[in-house]
Amino acid sequence: MLDAIVIGGGFSGLAAALALHKSYKSFILLEARDRLGGRTHTRRLDDGSYVDIGGQWIGPTQDRMYSLCKEYNVKWYETYNQGRNIIDLNQVIKTYTGLIPKMDVASLINIDLLLKKLDRMARGISVDKPWNNNRAVKWDSISLDVFVRKNCYTKNCYKVVRAGLETVYACEMNEVSLLHALFYIRSGTNLNTLLSIKGGAQQHRIKGGMQALTDRIAETLMHSIRLNRVVKQIVQHDNSVTLIGEGFSYEARRAIVAIPPPLIKAIDFQPSLPLHKSQLLDKMSMGIVGKVFGIYEKPFWRDNGFSGQVVADELSPFQTFFDSSPADGEYGVLLAFCIANRARDFFSKNEASRKQIALNSFVRYFGKEASNPKHYIDHCWADEAWSRGCYAGIYSTGAWTNFRGELSKPFGRIHWAGTETSDIWYGYIEGAVRAGERAANEVVKLI
Amino acid sequence: MLDAIVIGGGFSGLAAALALHKSYKSFILLEARDRLGGRTHTRRLDDGSYVDIGGQWIGPTQDRMYSLCKEYNVKWYETYNQGRNIIDLNQVIKTYTGLIPKMDVASLINIDLLLKKLDRMARGISVDKPWNNNRAVKWDSISLDVFVRKNCYTKNCYKVVRAGLETVYACEMNEVSLLHALFYIRSGTNLNTLLSIKGGAQQHRIKGGMQALTDRIAETLMHSIRLNRVVKQIVQHDNSVTLIGEGFSYEARRAIVAIPPPLIKAIDFQPSLPLHKSQLLDKMSMGIVGKVFGIYEKPFWRDNGFSGQVVADELSPFQTFFDSSPADGEYGVLLAFCIANRARDFFSKNEASRKQIALNSFVRYFGKEASNPKHYIDHCWADEAWSRGCYAGIYSTGAWTNFRGELSKPFGRIHWAGTETSDIWYGYIEGAVRAGERAANEVVKLI
Repeated sequence: MLDAIVIGGGFSGLAAALALHKSYKSFILLEARDRLGGRTHTRRLDDGSYVDIGGQWIGPTQDRMYSLCKEYNVKWYETYNQGRNIIDLNQVIKTYTGLIPKMDVASLINIDLLLKKLDRMARGISVDKPWNNNRAVKWDSISLDVFVRKNCYTKNCYKVVRAGLETVYACEMNEVSLLHALFYIRSGTNLNTLLSIKGGAQQHRIKGGMQALTDRIAETLMHSIRLNRVVKQIVQHDNSVTLIGEGFSYEARRAIVAIPPPLIKAIDFQPSLPLHKSQLLDKMSMGIVGKVFGIYEKPFWRDNGFSGQVVADELSPFQTFFDSSPADGEYGVLLAFCIANRARDFFSKNEASRKQIALNSFVRYFGKEASNPKHYIDHCWADEAWSRGCYAGIYSTGAWTNFRGELSKPFGRIHWAGTETSDIWYGYIEGAVRAGERAANEVVKLI
Repeated sequence: MLDAIVIGGGFSGLAAALALHKSYKSFILLEARDRLGGRTHTRRLDDGSYVDIGGQWIGPTQDRMYSLCKEYNVKWYETYNQGRNIIDLNQVIKTYTGLIPKMDVASLINIDLLLKKLDRMARGISVDKPWNNNRAVKWDSISLDVFVRKNCYTKNCYKVVRAGLETVYACEMNEVSLLHALFYIRSGTNLNTLLSIKGGAQQHRIKGGMQALTDRIAETLMHSIRLNRVVKQIVQHDNSVTLIGEGFSYEARRAIVAIPPPLIKAIDFQPSLPLHKSQLLDKMSMGIVGKVFGIYEKPFWRDNGFSGQVVADELSPFQTFFDSSPADGEYGVLLAFCIANRARDFFSKNEASRKQIALNSFVRYFGKEASNPKHYIDHCWADEAWSRGCYAGIYSTGAWTNFRGELSKPFGRIHWAGTETSDIWYGYIEGAVRAGERAANEVVKLI
């Protein structure tokens, strides 16, 4: 009998599998798709260009990701971060250099104070027990939007903070509990880290795309990976657990489930999941992010002095833009983030309309050269049946205080991974890896 | 080809089928279970006694339900509502008669003002467009709990309001958007109606249990009903829609989906559901209610001057109690509502423990005679695979303002019923019936 079976071949499942491999345990990994990588995926085009349509960045304190890169000899490079940034407020475009957008001073001060206040509150959160803070009950009864509105004294402050925080959480601010928002900040160090390129979560890209790392890890695990295996039922016995799908049935001592929260609910567990856990799963929804790319012969905006970075208010179809070109800048990639209500509107349109809207937006900021990309690509993660959204599961009000640590608590012979079960870097690839390793360690200790 | 297929044999599906029947349309109704009634179900015991383990009351303004009862010659009777009520606060039991609990005057005034304030706010909500209120954005960014805490000046006020509102919404107050809470009040007329027996939503019971009505409706529809038909896929074509499950495939001009929101997500739609609709479904979770019954030879508490009604604070395993005996009082039924966190804790225990806890509670209020029921029965609706919870789907913060009327909007040849698609008496059987009839009328007009 196998020691363990890992369900899900995203970074969390792969990290769990690697940890089992290194502990000389016997295991297999079952993945529903025909590919690995989960919420990361590098789309490679015929002309040799590629874009990361899923997770694409790593940054300081994401130690496990840098270790994996080193171990597998995968290189990283600095996200392009020079030149003038753009702020698009009230239909007016302004450019600026450095970290401080060009806008009225009152709004600038307001933004600074508000973000600092959020950071101060987040510092009081213990990431392993967010519900223990003495204001947890209060913070978990309101959405992030309440806090932000209450602390915004100018309209422009609200607009900019909103675009930034939507990009961080991948949802409308009224869809996420303030307590979860604070936990998320603390889990990723602080807001400055989450929002920044330099010194922050967007500092580095992977050469060849995130898939380069996945592919290398997959080489190590090759003989243990089974693609196109949709697990439909998990049956626990006294001394083993059986995983059943169409045309297959595997048995092992332990199972590690490393899939997004909504997909857990689609599996038939025998015995059924503990009531608290299944109820918590009902309270979580996935964020919604679309990534919208224009691929150009050259990163022409650089020559024109632009960084490729834009922050745009709700009058734009996209919240934020980045230069997402490869390491050597041999070709240019503009990336727009389309999130929450903007994503639901944008991705309800057909591809021709989407392309038109996106190119209009690129041209608006970077000029006529943006109107003719080599490729236009967009991808909405809510459309992926085996992800159901991105970046991560979001706690609605009440979920943290009513359910506490239910998500990662082992259930008999079933252990839980996935970025949503990580205290550190929840919602990020780093969190996925840490959760996978933690779950594997639980299993290794018990076998 | 059939004119229509109805999916779901709860009251909403049955009402839709009846309306199709009366319009001389050809149709079938597919139900996943081996029974009809959905979130209503009368459990009949060998000795002839019965309890409504699901929805059991009707009251004034629930006109469609009274009409159905008259049409099918099903009788109703008054919910027992005489004698002394009990309030259990801070481990102290007090009895009182009438509507006003025995507690400190400050708390009484506070409760009255708070409920009136909620009612006043609810009056400003238009039930067909709750998001149109000019405070909708604010109310949809906070949970009901924020409002209640802010307006409670005494601990006892909070305790009593909490027990009452948890019984109304079937969730923790921090799990429901204030806007949804207000919509729900307005949808059911006002808070007094929702909370009351006399003149309110708990005024009448059905003789023989709610199933008596279901059974009579089923007789009319008998030849059109197919039980044990789990619809797994709905495929839309140019002129028809195909419903596919294990071992069956049916085609019709139109389909009416009359199942709880979480179950919609389990169906594979071709083409897939509109993004806004599937996203909204992700934002809704079902309430969690357990009903806990002691069935006794006689309603002995009546002889002792008790109404059977209790309101209990969070130190009790149950929020509220009612006399749930049959019309003639030939035997006695005590009913305790176990909701939200209390339900998640209670129903995580085994049946022997649950019975012990429940009987202790019954004895505590009604004396030693309560310790030996003829039958003990409990049922948690979150455990029912084809309901996933009760009373209804709950909107988390942001859901009403971000998604608006998505739930009931037809999608090609698919029309939507279920109590969650009703403006009036949302969450109640009456709402289910109205939604079913509305969906059937949409279909009849188009065929």
